[in-house]
Parts: sequence; C-alpha cells; structure tokens
Amino acid sequence: MTSTVPQTDARYAHAPQRTSGMPVRKYVPFHEQITVDLPDRTWPDRRITQAPRWCAVDLRDGNQALIEPMNAERKLTMFRLLVEMGYKEIEVGFPSASQTDFDFVRMLIEDGHIPDDVIIQVLTQSREHLIARTYESLRGAKQAIVHLYNSTSTLQREVVFRTDEDGIVDIALNGAKLCKKFEETIPDTRIYYEYSPESYTGTELEFAARICNEVLEVFEPTAERPVIVNLPATVEMATPNVYADSIEWMNRHLEHREHVILSLHPHNDRGTAVAAAELGYQAGADRIEGCLFGNGERTGNVDLVTLGMNLFSQGVDPQIDFTVGGGMDHIKRVVEQCNQLPVHERHPWAGDLVFTAFSGSHQDAIKKGLDAMGARAEAQGLGIDDIVWGVPYLPIDPKDVGRSYDAVIRVNSQSGKGGVSYLLKTERNLDLPRRLQIEFSRAVQKHTDAQGVEVTAEDIWRIFSDEYLPVDADSDLEPWGRLKLISTRTTSGESGPVTLEVDLSDAGTVRSLTGTGNGPVDAFLDVLRQVGHDVLVLDYAEHALSSGSDAAAAAYVECSIGDDVLWGVGIDPSIVTASLKAIISAVNRYERAEVEGRDVDPATVGR
Amino acid sequence: MTSTVPQTDARYAHAPQRTSGMPVRKYVPFHEQITVDLPDRTWPDRRITQAPRWCAVDLRDGNQALIEPMNAERKLTMFRLLVEMGYKEIEVGFPSASQTDFDFVRMLIEDGHIPDDVIIQVLTQSREHLIARTYESLRGAKQAIVHLYNSTSTLQREVVFRTDEDGIVDIALNGAKLCKKFEETIPDTRIYYEYSPESYTGTELEFAARICNEVLEVFEPTAERPVIVNLPATVEMATPNVYADSIEWMNRHLEHREHVILSLHPHNDRGTAVAAAELGYQAGADRIEGCLFGNGERTGNVDLVTLGMNLFSQGVDPQIDFTVGGGMDHIKRVVEQCNQLPVHERHPWAGDLVFTAFSGSHQDAIKKGLDAMGARAEAQGLGIDDIVWGVPYLPIDPKDVGRSYDAVIRVNSQSGKGGVSYLLKTERNLDLPRRLQIEFSRAVQKHTDAQGVEVTAEDIWRIFSDEYLPVDADSDLEPWGRLKLISTRTTSGESGPVTLEVDLSDAGTVRSLTGTGNGPVDAFLDVLRQVGHDVLVLDYAEHALSSGSDAAAAAYVECSIGDDVLWGVGIDPSIVTASLKAIISAVNRYERAEVEGRDVDPATVGR
Repeated sequence: MTSTVPQTDARYAHAPQRTSGMPVRKYVPFHEQITVDLPDRTWPDRRITQAPRWCAVDLRDGNQALIEPMNAERKLTMFRLLVEMGYKEIEVGFPSASQTDFDFVRMLIEDGHIPDDVIIQVLTQSREHLIARTYESLRGAKQAIVHLYNSTSTLQREVVFRTDEDGIVDIALNGAKLCKKFEETIPDTRIYYEYSPESYTGTELEFAARICNEVLEVFEPTAERPVIVNLPATVEMATPNVYADSIEWMNRHLEHREHVILSLHPHNDRGTAVAAAELGYQAGADRIEGCLFGNGERTGNVDLVTLGMNLFSQGVDPQIDFTVGGGMDHIKRVVEQCNQLPVHERHPWAGDLVFTAFSGSHQDAIKKGLDAMGARAEAQGLGIDDIVWGVPYLPIDPKDVGRSYDAVIRVNSQSGKGGVSYLLKTERNLDLPRRLQIEFSRAVQKHTDAQGVEVTAEDIWRIFSDEYLPVDADSDLEPWGRLKLISTRTTSGESGPVTLEVDLSDAGTVRSLTGTGNGPVDAFLDVLRQVGHDVLVLDYAEHALSSGSDAAAAAYVECSIGDDVLWGVGIDPSIVTASLKAIISAVNRYERAEVEGRDVDPATVGR
Repeated sequence: MTSTVPQTDARYAHAPQRTSGMPVRKYVPFHEQITVDLPDRTWPDRRITQAPRWCAVDLRDGNQALIEPMNAERKLTMFRLLVEMGYKEIEVGFPSASQTDFDFVRMLIEDGHIPDDVIIQVLTQSREHLIARTYESLRGAKQAIVHLYNSTSTLQREVVFRTDEDGIVDIALNGAKLCKKFEETIPDTRIYYEYSPESYTGTELEFAARICNEVLEVFEPTAERPVIVNLPATVEMATPNVYADSIEWMNRHLEHREHVILSLHPHNDRGTAVAAAELGYQAGADRIEGCLFGNGERTGNVDLVTLGMNLFSQGVDPQIDFTVGGGMDHIKRVVEQCNQLPVHERHPWAGDLVFTAFSGSHQDAIKKGLDAMGARAEAQGLGIDDIVWGVPYLPIDPKDVGRSYDAVIRVNSQSGKGGVSYLLKTERNLDLPRRLQIEFSRAVQKHTDAQGVEVTAEDIWRIFSDEYLPVDADSDLEPWGRLKLISTRTTSGESGPVTLEVDLSDAGTVRSLTGTGNGPVDAFLDVLRQVGHDVLVLDYAEHALSSGSDAAAAAYVECSIGDDVLWGVGIDPSIVTASLKAIISAVNRYERAEVEGRDVDPATVGR
C-alpha cells in the first residue's frame, strides 16, 4: 500500500514518512479551481475591536441538518434562548419548503413571541410559488428579512443547473423582482433583503461580484433600508486566509457598499470555520451567520458561542450574554435538548473538560496564579473581579460563564490503572457520568489535602459511599442525611399522570406523602416540594451493576437545587427506586452543604 | 443586566444589539500583552504542497488530559494504530514524571514494538533527577528524541517561577547541558533533541528567539543531527494569523536554521488550532505535533486527522493512511476505546453526520453530481476513480475513507414530528443509535423510491420489523432469516470463561451448540463461528422498552461480518437474549443481502 517518498530532506532520513497510497489524484487544489489573488490584502494587520452583527441560523440551517428536526415546542425553546442571549437577527425557517417551518413562523407572529427589537429572517429559493408562500408566512410581522438564494458555483452551474453565468443571473434577478412584487402584498411589514450566492466558495470572484451587484440594483439599498449580501462557505474549500482574501476582494468590488451589510456564513468542512469567520470579519465583513455550538449541515455552521467567547476573552463585548440561566452549562443543556446532539467534552469555552487541569504542574501553576491575583488585588485595595485576569492555563475566569475550575485528582498506583473512576468501575461496577467524575474528584481532593496520604481503592469507596450513599453503604460509615426512602407505590392508568405514594423518613419521622407527575421521577419531585425542596433534574443516567437474578441498578442524577447544581447516586434492585434514592442523595448532600457551608470553589482561593 | 450600545451604525437601528453586561474589563487584548509586528509577512501568499513532518503526541499530551489515563494495553493499542497509519515520530510519554509512562517506554523497547523507521519521543522537565530518569527509560532503544521544555511566558515568569529572563534561560541551558551529559550514559542509542519554550504564545518574541538560540548553541544542530525547536500555543491566545506572523518572525530569527526543524504545537482554546497549524506551516514551519481527533489538555491539541484529510482533499498526499483497518470508522473506534472519549457527530472527515444530506435540494444536487461523473468517466473511457471528484456538498468521495454517502430520509407529516426515528421512539419506544438511524433511513428510502408514496408511522414499523425483526414482529409479515434462537443456558464460575449452550434453528433444523467466551455475547460469537460466521461486535446499546413487570429490553448491535458492517436488533424480556437476538438479526440480514446482492451504495450510482 505504501512506498518510499524520495527523501528530499536529509533531516528526516532516520524515520522517513512514506506515501499513503490514498487516491490523491482524484482531487485538485483549490487554487487550480478558483483564482483568489490579493497581494495587497490589509486584513492581516487588522484587529477585532467590536462585535459583528450576529445572525443565528439554528432554526433553519441548524435544524435542517438534524436527524430529527425540532418540533414546534423545541423550536420555541431555541428561539427564546436566542432572544434571551441577545441575538437580534434570527433565521427562523424556510417556510415555503416546509409546512412545519411555515406553521412555526405563523405561531411566532400570531402569538406575539417576537420582541420589537428582534427581526426574524426567512429563507427562500428564487421561484415564484415559493416566494409567494414566503410572504404569506410573514403577514402581520412588524419587520422581517427575506433571504433569497441561488447556487452560483462552477460545479453547480455545470451539473445541477446546466446553464451559463447569464442563466444563473437571470434566476437571481427574477427572484429579486418577484420579492419586490410580493412585498406589496404585506404593506404593514417592513421588509429587508438578504441575498446569498450559495456555494460562493466555489464561484469565480468576478462572477460573484457581478451577480451580487445586479441583485443590489433590484433591491436598491439605502441608508434606511440596507441590503445584506451574504457570502457563504457552503462547503469550506481552502485555508481560512483564502476565504479572508476573497472577502476583502468582494468588499472592494461590491457597489453601494455604504448601504450593504456584508455577511459571512462559514461551514466547517475543514475544521477552520471559526478562523474563516474571524479573518473574514477582519477583511471587512459586518455580520456573521452561525449556530450555537456549531450545529448545521455535515460538519456544522460556524459556532457562535466560540466566536462570542473569543471576543470576550480579548476584552471585547460580544453583545451576547453567555451567563443567561446561570451560564454556559444552562445554554449547553437547552441546545442539547433542542438539537438532540451532544456538545463535545472539549468544545471551546463550554465542554465538560475545558476548565479542568489534570497534571500536577498545571495545577500548581494555576494555584500560584490565583494566589498572585489575590495578593495583587489586596495590594491595590481592589476586589479580585476588578483586576485583570491572569492565570496560567485558564484563558478566562471560569466563573464568568458560571463554571468552576476543576483540579482533577488521579490516584497514582503501581498498576498504572490509576483513576478514581477507573477504580470505581473495576472494583464496584459503577460507571460515573463525566460531570459526576469531575465533581467526585473534588471530594477525593478534599480528603487527600486533609490526610496528605496516597488513597487506595478502599479509601475511594469509603469517600464515595460517605459522599453519595450514606444510608446504602455496605461499610461501617455513620449514616447521615435528613431524608431516607422507606417504601413507594406507583399507580398509573392507561395514560395521563402517574401517582406516587411514598413513605419517607424525614429526620427520623416517617411521613406518608403522595405526588403526581408524568412519571415516577416527576411525581417524586412533586413529593419533594411538599418537604420544602424545589428540585430540577438536569441529567440522568442509569445502568445495571451486574447481570443475573441479583442484579442491582445504579442511578445518577444531576439536580439543580437552590443555586446549586449537584449529583446524587442511588443503588437498588428496582430501577425506579434507584432513581428516587439518587434524587434523595442529591437533596441530602445539598442540605449537608447548607449546614457545613458551601464547598470552597478552588477558583476562589485567595480571594 | 443589559444596556443600549450607542448605535454608531444606522443600518442596525431596527434591531439594535446591546451590551452583554459580561465583565469584559477583566481581559486585555493579546496585542496589548505581546507585540507581533510583521507587515512584510509572506505566508498569506504561500500554498501547502507537501505534508509536514507529523509528530503524534496522543500518548503524552493526549493521555495526560484524560480523566482515566490509558493503561498499558490501551497505550499499546494506540501506539500500534499510530504506527500503522504511518506516523514516524511518536511522543510516548513523560517517563520521569510517571511510573506508568516509564514502564510503557521500557515495554516498547524491551518487547521490540518500535519499528526501525519509527522514532519515539519522551518529554522531560529541565531538572537533573528527571533528566537522569528519562535517559534510563531509553536504554536499548535504537534512536529517540529527548524533548526538553521549560515555561517562558511573562505570566509564568512572574507568578510561577518568580525570576527574570536570565533565570529562565539558565533553567533551559542547565537542562540542555545535563541532557548532553546523560546522553553519554546510553551510547548505543542515537539521541535527537527537541526544545520547547512552553507557553510560547505568552512569551515576547525576542525572548523566545533568544532562549531557543542559546539552547541551540548547547545542542549543536548539524545536518546529520538536526534539532527540533517546537513553538507551542500552550494556550491559544489570538487569531491564527497572529500565530502565523509569530512563526514567520521566529523562522527569520532562529540561528542554524538549515539544521533546525521548526515545529508547531497548537492547542484549541479559541477553536482555531487547525487554522493556526496550517497558517503556521505556510509561515515556514516544518513539523506539526498533535493528536488524533484533537484529544489533549482542555480543548485539545490540534487534530492530526483533520490536518491530514485537509491535505488529501487538496490533492496533497498526507503521508498518513486514513484507510487502515477499513477506514475512518475503524480509526475512530480504536481512538474512542483508547481515550474513552467520543468523536463528535460533526467532527470534520470522521463524524457520523459529515457525509449525510438531509435536504431534498442537497440530495438532488448530489445525485446529479454523481450522474455527471458517471457520464464524464464513460465519455473518457475511464473508471469513476480515475477522474477528478466533483460532487456538490461532498468535498471528497466518502468511499476514500471507507464511508458511504447517506441520504437521510425524513417523513413529512402535518404534525411536524417528522422523523423516522422520532416515530419509532414515540410510537414503539425504540431509541435507535445514530448510525443505525442512518442505516435504517436507507431501508425507508428504498421503500419510498419503490412505492412513491408518503410513508406513515405504521409503514415505518412494518419496514423496520421486516428489516430487523423478521421472527419477532407482532405483525402479519412473513418470517425470514436462516437462524432463529430457541433457547439458551449460561454457566459461569467464580471467574474465568462463560459457557453458553444454545438451541438454534438453522434453516428449520434445530442444532444444539456450545460456545465459550468472557461473557455470553462473546460465547455466542464462538457458537456462530461453528455455523460459519466470523462476527465482530463493533458497537452495542441496550435499553428498557418500558417500565414495570412486563418490561422488555431492546438491544442494538453493530457487527462486522465479512466485508460488511451492519446492525441487528433484538427485543426480549431478558437483556442477554435480546443481545443474542440482535446479533442473529445482523447475521440474517447479512445472509439476505448475500442472496439478493449487496444494497446499491448511493455513492456508486452511475459508476
């Protein structure tokens, strides 16, 4: 399969890389397809000093790329989140292509979900019946952006449309004229226009400029009614500097430039969409379209969260609030629920592992950095939040997005099978969810800091039992915790709510309580409200501890209680009882922390 | 929390973005921390025409960032994968900091795992006892790279080391001299050197050049023994063009440049590590360190898979084989198993969703593109693989990495709850794994293409039952499939292998067979070998269909059989029986396809 590459460089003779044998001859480099020539580019000397105009396309480009598109309820949840975060332009659908999208736009308008300072955007192809239907969907809106597109690339002209440049321009101009015509059917709605030469990255720049300028002649941009020209990297085809060059070239060749809003729409096929957006913005763009956490076709649209947080980390106001609902974890949960896709553990600014430190030298440097900040603030007579952040390995204060810095402790053992969670898994069959692993590592750390000794597998089980399973542990630990489950009885009919009757030991007194809900967990949360706790279940996992007749299940629940987010664990032969025990574990832990005082957040050490 | 931004731009008066209220004053922009000034940069005009020297650091930087670091077995699996793919420089650990790493390096050397044309690399801090231990770990190796580092940033100098530039240079030079001294203790091993000014991105360029040049004086690079200077974005702090400028500046200021290998080591804090690596490589670097799928501290190291595939898509041989073991899915599975971290659905070139098309217009364009390729190849009298690839929305032929193009079909219904898998979930409680959802959508498509009618929820259940559950379905479908499970008995002792006795209907004849394995599934694979099938289980998921006493479990298994990868589904009250039925479902489906001829892969239409 492989053969030797002629070693042109003697420096590598000791370990020569070889040809892969992969069929590279099938592909031609981008510069042989499209010419982008801008030796006098200026963007590499520019810096970003203010936020672009954002447009969130989660409900259109993001939604259409889901195996299960959002239903109306999930769409509304996403729309509300985007509004709450501060997005003012939101593409809400492709109403002429989908009845669901049409109905959703109608619901937004008719039920008054669109704030006055937010403008919705709808996509349409350049065909009369689709344009007619698009305007029909907008009736009654105060204002809207109609986003017209047609594909312009050399490849699509040749294999899809089988027409020449003039034919493609005709499609665009006919569409633009029809838009102006149908605009008159809804005179009470203020219409703005956006035009996208779709597959722009595969289009010759001269032709892209020509078609945009001809469309602008129809739309007639003015100071009061600017027109958006959106240049999508429908497929990302080259390094991001090439996209930036092309944007600067277009920026120089668009007419009516003072009344044009130049917009970017990068996809992430080469993993460089964030860079393409940033460099393209330096190159003169005004506006960026993308999705939260980079959802979208194939590899996704550019990630609006990363772009916004990158600005924040440079002292530039993103004009988007990443602290809504408590911060990044809340935003992540809502988006995961809407998209039914996870956010990766290493996703910039948001992944479960991005504010962790594992190595001792990193943990040491972070501690010294936090100490130095504390000393500096004290010397200046200022609070820690009033001085410039500077801690090694932590580009921002995790607290600014509602997170904490996690020093994850490992257990060094000669076996090399070192981790806390590895030991719980191999010795106890417990398979902890990622965030619980991180939470528990803090409990282990508290113990190791206090004892100053190496922890054994037995120590870890004792710490875990005492932390999460005070009433279940098969050990000599002293039981603790206000609540304890004694017995349950569940009643459910053909459909409708479930009724749960519970005998609960509350600080030693047995109480019989009844709750209702759409399932036993939901009904139990109703019971807990009666003992004074408003608990929200954020995440949930359950697995069998073993197979066979004596099988027990372990349940893990992440709960929001008061201002805290914390985990509980329950073990029981019944999967339902295990879940309820897990919730009790979280509640008992919350109450213990109330009594003992909150855990010291390591990120606040020295403050 | 928010207040109005003075509207400097009247174009946005209709929907003004507002200040976020986030504490931006805590952060200063990068250019106020470090000066990078290179107006005569040349990298934006350069193009990448050959692969860089790759160095895979999965076993060191990647491994140290895992909640559960790899054990020796997982490490060896990763090492073998990297060697098989063609990586020639592999950082295998930090042997002086970890007994596990030390033992692993010894095992690689003593058990002869390192091919002659591969060079291992080990990391060490600049302290005498650590350096001594590092050389001890290398005894007996044919050749090795000793990678010396110390931290040089303004921040670390101030808060961690509390010393000035001279003090930091002393640390580096002392370490370099000690390396040369200890090198003499293992004269039979050819030692190469790498030096990293760690936290380079937070270091003044003049100081970075000074410390590298002084270290080079000690290491004495020659044509035969070049020295690697590695410039890590330990924390990614600015847009990737700034990193590229800094690399070009360093490229001009390093002495002995002709004998220096300039290496990059980008992390992904701003989501632009791939861009930083590419632009830095254009700026004159020779070598890139990274991890498969971007594992590594916090947001990860730069992703070697994306970098390599980006080259491939431009017709440049990556000198890495992304087809080993059948292709990208195999590589992904091995890495997921080693790291115990998933590869995201939208990960470039590798995610489950990156070769899918959902929208009708995309599917139509792809079909036209494939047809045009077929016609073009025929006209030229060539095979489809001998002409240039050109299909809208598919930047490469998925077949080149062992994948297929998936046109995912949705079911349009008035309810807006449209998807195939949504209906299976809500109507039948079946929660299909992502890749099974995609596989099943092809079966639905075959049906819709054939029938040309809208499919209902009932249709979908019939198609699903007939495809996966021929002998289980509660319908009037005709049963099919060679194998059927009649009964099982499992025996297992305290530890050791499990014995499984099975009564199996094989084309109507009952056969009693016995297999052994480390669990019932493994033992069943042993049974299947006796009926002529060598089955490998690639992925597995199981869940309860309902709660209560009549609860049944649904099991999904992804199997490799012959040259095919396909799913099976089993439903049974016993979780073990459900799993075995699922494997039988896959085997029966494999045999049916053998008889009927393989499914036509849509990506090969027109060939």
